[in-house]
Amino acid sequence: MAKSNVSRRDMLKMSLVGAGALALGAVNAEATVSAKDVKFDEEWDVVIIGSGFAGLAAGIKASERGNKVLILEKMGRVGGNSVVNGGIFAVPGSELQKKNGVKDSKEIFIADCVKAGLGLNHVELLEVLADRAVDTFNFTVKHGAKYLDKLILEGGHSVPRTYYTENTSGSGIVQPLVESFKKSDGCELRTRTKFDDFVTDESGRVVGVTVRENYKFDKDLFSDDRENKGGDKKIIKAKKGVILASGGFCSDKFFRKLQDPRAVPEFDTTNHPGATAGALISAFKAGALPVQVGWIQYIPYKCPDEKGNGITSKFAAQASFRYGFSVDPKTGKRYMNELADRKIRADAMFKIIDAKANSYPINLCDSVAAAKLVPSDLENPMNSGVIKKFDTLEELAAFYKIPAGELTKTAERYNGFVASGIDKDFGKPMKLTDGITVSKPPFYAMRGAPKLHHTMGGVKINTKAQVLNIDDEPIAGLYAAGEVTGGTHGASRLGSCAILDCLTFGMIAGENI
Amino acid sequence: MAKSNVSRRDMLKMSLVGAGALALGAVNAEATVSAKDVKFDEEWDVVIIGSGFAGLAAGIKASERGNKVLILEKMGRVGGNSVVNGGIFAVPGSELQKKNGVKDSKEIFIADCVKAGLGLNHVELLEVLADRAVDTFNFTVKHGAKYLDKLILEGGHSVPRTYYTENTSGSGIVQPLVESFKKSDGCELRTRTKFDDFVTDESGRVVGVTVRENYKFDKDLFSDDRENKGGDKKIIKAKKGVILASGGFCSDKFFRKLQDPRAVPEFDTTNHPGATAGALISAFKAGALPVQVGWIQYIPYKCPDEKGNGITSKFAAQASFRYGFSVDPKTGKRYMNELADRKIRADAMFKIIDAKANSYPINLCDSVAAAKLVPSDLENPMNSGVIKKFDTLEELAAFYKIPAGELTKTAERYNGFVASGIDKDFGKPMKLTDGITVSKPPFYAMRGAPKLHHTMGGVKINTKAQVLNIDDEPIAGLYAAGEVTGGTHGASRLGSCAILDCLTFGMIAGENI
Repeated sequence: MAKSNVSRRDMLKMSLVGAGALALGAVNAEATVSAKDVKFDEEWDVVIIGSGFAGLAAGIKASERGNKVLILEKMGRVGGNSVVNGGIFAVPGSELQKKNGVKDSKEIFIADCVKAGLGLNHVELLEVLADRAVDTFNFTVKHGAKYLDKLILEGGHSVPRTYYTENTSGSGIVQPLVESFKKSDGCELRTRTKFDDFVTDESGRVVGVTVRENYKFDKDLFSDDRENKGGDKKIIKAKKGVILASGGFCSDKFFRKLQDPRAVPEFDTTNHPGATAGALISAFKAGALPVQVGWIQYIPYKCPDEKGNGITSKFAAQASFRYGFSVDPKTGKRYMNELADRKIRADAMFKIIDAKANSYPINLCDSVAAAKLVPSDLENPMNSGVIKKFDTLEELAAFYKIPAGELTKTAERYNGFVASGIDKDFGKPMKLTDGITVSKPPFYAMRGAPKLHHTMGGVKINTKAQVLNIDDEPIAGLYAAGEVTGGTHGASRLGSCAILDCLTFGMIAGENI
Repeated sequence: MAKSNVSRRDMLKMSLVGAGALALGAVNAEATVSAKDVKFDEEWDVVIIGSGFAGLAAGIKASERGNKVLILEKMGRVGGNSVVNGGIFAVPGSELQKKNGVKDSKEIFIADCVKAGLGLNHVELLEVLADRAVDTFNFTVKHGAKYLDKLILEGGHSVPRTYYTENTSGSGIVQPLVESFKKSDGCELRTRTKFDDFVTDESGRVVGVTVRENYKFDKDLFSDDRENKGGDKKIIKAKKGVILASGGFCSDKFFRKLQDPRAVPEFDTTNHPGATAGALISAFKAGALPVQVGWIQYIPYKCPDEKGNGITSKFAAQASFRYGFSVDPKTGKRYMNELADRKIRADAMFKIIDAKANSYPINLCDSVAAAKLVPSDLENPMNSGVIKKFDTLEELAAFYKIPAGELTKTAERYNGFVASGIDKDFGKPMKLTDGITVSKPPFYAMRGAPKLHHTMGGVKINTKAQVLNIDDEPIAGLYAAGEVTGGTHGASRLGSCAILDCLTFGMIAGENI
């Protein structure tokens, strides 16, 4: 596995005169499956684990270079989180920026990412994203992706640099890439096929994978990776190597809790159920360097009363957090600056949430604030019952079991802060409230919760998308791209950088393997 | 290595009819050294890696149970970070608390730790600390440690629960434990002996270690672990197993930067030079589960102009941060709430520091603030030249190359906040300033920097101090204790909990192995 390790072992072997002979090579920890002990059932040039942005980009690039490529997808449907993604794509230096006179640069893009990432970013990877962004965008256009002809200013970015796909979903990129890939000669995208372990040769090079076909993912298991024994085993050779594009592990109730004990099973995620850590764990077993695995990004403007992304985000973020406030139902008091960054807000919410007792903060605002929304962003969640309307704050308090007197006091105090322009309690930037208080009935409210959104850590890759081992040296035959890699975005990823990251390093992996 | 892994492999083997035979056991990744390939040079019951609090407590406990114990220490001196530790020891539920009428409980202790740890704490390990704290304290007293007869209220703790060793240093515990251990029958503490790899048998059990004796640690190397090929190789059998007590990696310029890229080589640490990640990395290679490895704790009230802990902390924390302020020399402006928690302050400082350009924030206060200090805490660093005195703010600005007009404006603005009781810029709790402004000359100042203090992550252990593999199951024959373990303290460890943690899990490892 490790070059420096081997040389240390060699040295050990050479010098152990009289100290016992040490044969190299054979070890006990069952890290990977040994190629010399298996017979391969199939043979491909390149095997890719995962069919999201990263896997598809890698597959197309590898097939363009004449490789026979097999993409494995454990779920029944293609695309992982990428098809439930919001379809926003940051492209620093784009043509549309130039057309619109937006000044952007590699330096500004990296500074934005590093600010959000608390400086934990592996900047050499961000540099690649900046350098390749336009090329990556053009790659998707060439393969049929369509974008709206406007740029949005996404939170945390200094300038408008974010495209929307025409259907405002990541599927607007995934679908055309799938079609392109499927047309490639001698290539295959195989669903319901779960990757288990890497197969390595005697030099430590990754030369294949063990898989189970006809796999039925069971989202009701605590850990599908650990408990689901189903499927038909197969061993597949990958002559040029394997690309790991298996995504993050926000839906992995087992592994995420080891890294972030706040993420108890009661906590929901914006991710699809298949976003588990099994492939990442296999990579660690094969010696991949773990980077920043403890950092998980949460979205603070979600609701525990609906599954996944839900439809209350606009109300929470744009009406309640901006023009109203959030309270702890146990005290009736505010507990955070409702306009702080995602991480600070999520951390503050976690401190008052008792998921086991089903106690969550209440996000509320008045009718003036609610009128600022696109009507459907209020009406739809009201129709589904997750946002409620009340004629008085007393009724709102009674419904959510908030001490009514305290809630009224909190509203009075908060309205005073709006008037004075200074939030003495939490430092919310009151100038952004446009003078709107919490006073004009009816009042609107929802239960709030952060949801797991992106696992920041993963395996360490270099700028060629090679997976590095724990001694910081490439593992031969193993590449990775996308959310399964760690470090690029540091502590917190900016919105709309996921598509850029996954596609770019997927392309690089496909070009280099 | 992994039980569930083996069973998956077994299953794979059983069912691979017609799909190629898969022999189990032999793998390629060089994770550990295979016992069947080596001849042991020595044989012990228990081998312990590291001679700090954890290793010594483990050694004494294991020897009390009749084991022949070998403690390995790679450095020339015994005790690692434990002897440069400040000697403060949190003991929830202590006799002295009862005598002084301090109400404490397991629940309060855990709540304090979880608050500081941002909820990332593995609470089952904190519970052990609370349950065993008095026993651990008594263990050190029995072996000769002496404490001052008063409790201090350490930052972040709800109640006074922290003892000071009589010599206000961790050496007040290390020295007596070393003497006790050395008196134990058939036990040895061997310095300059570097652990390299684990030796495992065919079942995956850890049964020994490979080491290098007469090792000369070279603190001038970028990575001693990777570059230093010195020492005489030996292979040592550990019949009952190995206890990993190798500490954290704040001094490891290679590995810390992979986890936290802000920790460039220019950045200093409070740790001794031997605090590197080599042993932790070997544990990961042996399959140990990495937990929260990306979280590093920094102390914000340190100085880049002195090595290690230095002597300016009291001035920075108690005079400048409380009664004065800190500015970015490039702008002359404040950039943080000087009384926020360690993590928030360190993060804010990192954003303005340019270590390569040698640009650091300036912490300053006036003469009224400085007079609040014990005189020696001002005089000693002034004598060594790291704290400077100035008759005017203009002179101070000129010396540190701060725009003078801006600094004066900042002082005026800050003094206004003292008068109004509200810090409109950063929310510093102004009531703690006791009305002291920055106005009465002379003025005192120093350059400030966060220093790496504690690596929060590491290997995952259970309540028996067994190291768990990546499938969350014990690795037979491998135990760990102290800073090399992760999760106990979550995102940030409270001061005075390190001694409690290291000693307690060291004892538990020694009791269970």
